[in-house]
Amino acid sequence: MKIDVLSLFPGMFQGVFGESILKKAAEKQAVTYNVVNFREYADNKHGQVDDYPYGGGAGMVLKPQPIFDAIEALSIEKEKKPRVVLLCPQGERYTQKKAEQLAQEEHLIFICGHYEGYDERIREHVITDEISIGDYVLTGGELGAMVVIDSVVRLLPGVLGNEDSPIKDSFSSGLLEHPHYTRPADFRGMTVPEALTSGNHKHINEWREKQSLKRTFERRPDLLKDYPLSDQQKKWLEEWRKS
Amino acid sequence: MKIDVLSLFPGMFQGVFGESILKKAAEKQAVTYNVVNFREYADNKHGQVDDYPYGGGAGMVLKPQPIFDAIEALSIEKEKKPRVVLLCPQGERYTQKKAEQLAQEEHLIFICGHYEGYDERIREHVITDEISIGDYVLTGGELGAMVVIDSVVRLLPGVLGNEDSPIKDSFSSGLLEHPHYTRPADFRGMTVPEALTSGNHKHINEWREKQSLKRTFERRPDLLKDYPLSDQQKKWLEEWRKS
Repeated sequence: MKIDVLSLFPGMFQGVFGESILKKAAEKQAVTYNVVNFREYADNKHGQVDDYPYGGGAGMVLKPQPIFDAIEALSIEKEKKPRVVLLCPQGERYTQKKAEQLAQEEHLIFICGHYEGYDERIREHVITDEISIGDYVLTGGELGAMVVIDSVVRLLPGVLGNEDSPIKDSFSSGLLEHPHYTRPADFRGMTVPEALTSGNHKHINEWREKQSLKRTFERRPDLLKDYPLSDQQKKWLEEWRKS
Repeated sequence: MKIDVLSLFPGMFQGVFGESILKKAAEKQAVTYNVVNFREYADNKHGQVDDYPYGGGAGMVLKPQPIFDAIEALSIEKEKKPRVVLLCPQGERYTQKKAEQLAQEEHLIFICGHYEGYDERIREHVITDEISIGDYVLTGGELGAMVVIDSVVRLLPGVLGNEDSPIKDSFSSGLLEHPHYTRPADFRGMTVPEALTSGNHKHINEWREKQSLKRTFERRPDLLKDYPLSDQQKKWLEEWRKS
């Protein structure tokens, strides 16, 4: 997979692309990263990329020209058109399902604005996907791009070794994770539940299943709506609802 | 505000803390960042911070000792207890409201795990807030911590200058932003809506209000549930629902 990022703050990506899984993925040639300062594409001598909004008001708006030209330069000679992702609060809410879709692509381009708005013609003619990572205000699109890139790259074939596998991905099973414990069994008087130290695998599995369901019930009941509950699970839920 | 981050990958934070608003906020002394590799607090000679899970299974679990000791060292001699934030998929969904709450604190500590699970005793005895930035799987808590830190620090007094202000924050007005346009009025045959170039401020404001509502209606109708609609806005919505 080829990932291009358009940003006025390319330095923000160094630490994140240079560590851990994202670094390993590049070393394994599962992905190449290319962070482009789109100011280089501005066709005016001052490198101006934004301008005042039509109709007045505070703030600046990203001009169409530098973005159009950058995207064209990055897409040229590619057989398949890239997905061009804009990070913005108005975008569709990002989910694991979307990450799985994006992981099928060969070429992703991310556009990161920073305080500025985007000229609407960029949205209408260049962008294929508008994504919001959540209902909160960030300074720019860079962190959103990093989040999407991390969640996509870790899904690429060969990227996650066994040593990197999460114990259990919360959203892939449909329920939240059960609690985990490791040694010591007694840490400053705080102990590990007996079920887990029993050595009885039937008890352990039942304890985990019940805790996983309980945590989902308490914290994210919305996830239970589409979950195929067993009879035992239905009984547990009934008990908790009563108490 | 003092922000401590516990991470096994402190290098990930360099680019993000070293650019743009987060950098300016530190220069203006509105915030200090301190990224701690909590491996330094491991009390065994190999610097081991994780161990196998009780009850078996794949993956590793972060041991309580290094985290407990790091938090104690970072909280010592502080009059007020810090908020200790764990980034994890099971946490409460992060919102702008939560960002506003955290921005009132003097001291925040973020704990970032990385593939590993957390020993439950850390959650029960050390953590004050479990936060999830969204329903997708990330490699570690680092990106989530950066997202929360960015959204909080930009709210601190004096951090955002006028030049940095967003045109309009989508979630503070309750509606999504209207489209923006800047020069040229004609870019490769794509033109700016007449209302915006009319110079008539009544028309401009009405166009923007209508577009803002329309975008919210089309993309995030859930935001309209609690929004105090004017009679005009109700009429527009009725028209769009019919068509």
